[in-house]
Amino acid sequence: MQSGGLSSSIKAKITELAAPIKDDLLSGAAEIALRAITVYQTALKIQEDASLPLSASERTDAVLLKEILAQTASALIDVQPAMAPLTAMGNIVLQAIDLEQSKEGIIEKANQALTRFESTLCASAATIADIAYDLIDPGELIFAYSFSSTVVSCLLNARARGRYFRVVCTEARPSMEGRKLASRLTSGGIEVIHTFDSALGLVLGNCSAAFMGVDCITRAGVVNKVGSWMLAVACRELKVPLYALSGTEKFISDDRMFDFEKHERPGSEVWEGAPKGVAVLNHQFDLVPFELLTGLVTENGILKEKDLEPYFSDSNAGVHQALKLS
Amino acid sequence: MQSGGLSSSIKAKITELAAPIKDDLLSGAAEIALRAITVYQTALKIQEDASLPLSASERTDAVLLKEILAQTASALIDVQPAMAPLTAMGNIVLQAIDLEQSKEGIIEKANQALTRFESTLCASAATIADIAYDLIDPGELIFAYSFSSTVVSCLLNARARGRYFRVVCTEARPSMEGRKLASRLTSGGIEVIHTFDSALGLVLGNCSAAFMGVDCITRAGVVNKVGSWMLAVACRELKVPLYALSGTEKFISDDRMFDFEKHERPGSEVWEGAPKGVAVLNHQFDLVPFELLTGLVTENGILKEKDLEPYFSDSNAGVHQALKLS
Repeated sequence: MQSGGLSSSIKAKITELAAPIKDDLLSGAAEIALRAITVYQTALKIQEDASLPLSASERTDAVLLKEILAQTASALIDVQPAMAPLTAMGNIVLQAIDLEQSKEGIIEKANQALTRFESTLCASAATIADIAYDLIDPGELIFAYSFSSTVVSCLLNARARGRYFRVVCTEARPSMEGRKLASRLTSGGIEVIHTFDSALGLVLGNCSAAFMGVDCITRAGVVNKVGSWMLAVACRELKVPLYALSGTEKFISDDRMFDFEKHERPGSEVWEGAPKGVAVLNHQFDLVPFELLTGLVTENGILKEKDLEPYFSDSNAGVHQALKLS
Repeated sequence: MQSGGLSSSIKAKITELAAPIKDDLLSGAAEIALRAITVYQTALKIQEDASLPLSASERTDAVLLKEILAQTASALIDVQPAMAPLTAMGNIVLQAIDLEQSKEGIIEKANQALTRFESTLCASAATIADIAYDLIDPGELIFAYSFSSTVVSCLLNARARGRYFRVVCTEARPSMEGRKLASRLTSGGIEVIHTFDSALGLVLGNCSAAFMGVDCITRAGVVNKVGSWMLAVACRELKVPLYALSGTEKFISDDRMFDFEKHERPGSEVWEGAPKGVAVLNHQFDLVPFELLTGLVTENGILKEKDLEPYFSDSNAGVHQALKLS
């Protein structure tokens, strides 16, 4: 990481900008990516903040700004290592500014890259929603797990196009994103049936399909909110087709494959005041092997395991120097 | 039910005695059976309670007492229809007093039957603990689900006999019996690893065996706290042997097979203030098919599916008239 030259107050400011992304336990990866765009936009203005010390005289504003953006990219990836769009976004922004020499040029190229990334995300979401529409049988129950903005937009889009169906979802302890999902869907005119996670076996068998979001896609499988593996195993047992809905920006390279395992939250979020002798685990992510998925619904169609290899090859290439793992 | 002759105040008193059993969401079936013995002992003294109106003059105390006991048995079964020992206990008490003509004779026979039932439960638990001891590999992790006094006594017994192992358990939302389990085990000197229910897939694979309690055993499978089906499916997927621990008093006849499905709790216990348009389900029990179990550990040894038929045949016979379903 080439941010050794940043003052500690600028580093602290960047950490502060990334903090709300770390604490966002309720949003899916695509929604967090949209929030990260705002973080970059704020980071681009750090130098204008009079309360921060200016760069040392021998360093140009342009060099400093590049370091700020590299540090921002690293900070965002660090706080949510499982959420692949943050890595993709960082890479795109840093590649876009690489050859720029002026502060103004960097700001322009960075903003262009962010806008392009946002447009791509939105276009992908629209295509995925069109494909998912055909997977929702009229009058049926659809199971949806955790909170994925991609899944939500697919369901709301289908309802808006006049398809009638109901959604079954569970809580997704301990952060209860399932309640956020239920609230969002019901305010969009979709009837919801809700229960706790361990009651999955009592409701899933009545569903005609199950949808899950994606945090990142690795060669070993799809990473998503903990509980997704359980859902996938139950879907196979009950013969309910399971689709993971995701833009291809969520593929990550092999060297980041198990980064998501770092993301453990405090045990006290699960059991405040657990007795001595009880170790409380609060891991956030599950790995779902591709063989447990019926298909991966992307902007390029419904992909099966055999279709995925080119995406992994592509994602290995072209990682910006500042984001390579040491 | 032959309790038409009971005054409404006596009926109300019996309902009140059974109420704590209804609201006990944290105890397993064997533990609830022990509490139910106290309910019968209190019911035997209802006539001595001066605040209650006495029986009409043409009815003898003996007839009234038989009706009180029949009503108590029905009330206990009604509040916990999945918990088979309550049915077995009611049947044993009513059979024991059937031929008695005096109040004193009824009280004596009922107390003898209750004591015998309690002794049988305790002897069964001790035998089951001996068998389970050999299923706990030294130094390994054992998964235990929900709260079963049979499972707890097996684990504490093994620890007291000097076997060292750790236990992994999950919350068992929404009543969180898993926390009661963790607390009980850790105070008995067993280290516990605890997490939420949907994280089962992250911890179960490290366990050498899984133990579950039983509420009742039907021809269709074992009924236990919701989440048990998920556990059983995950155990098969991860090749972890799963044992259900239960005395044979938990076999029930075919006519009560699906009584447990009646036992739905208020949705507000899952999500207080859920938005309009969200139906919240709070079912309490899962049915685990025998094919998903490695074995049923009883006082008669570890039974496989093929061994079970005689138990179902026996349980069909000899149900007291007052407890037959209409």
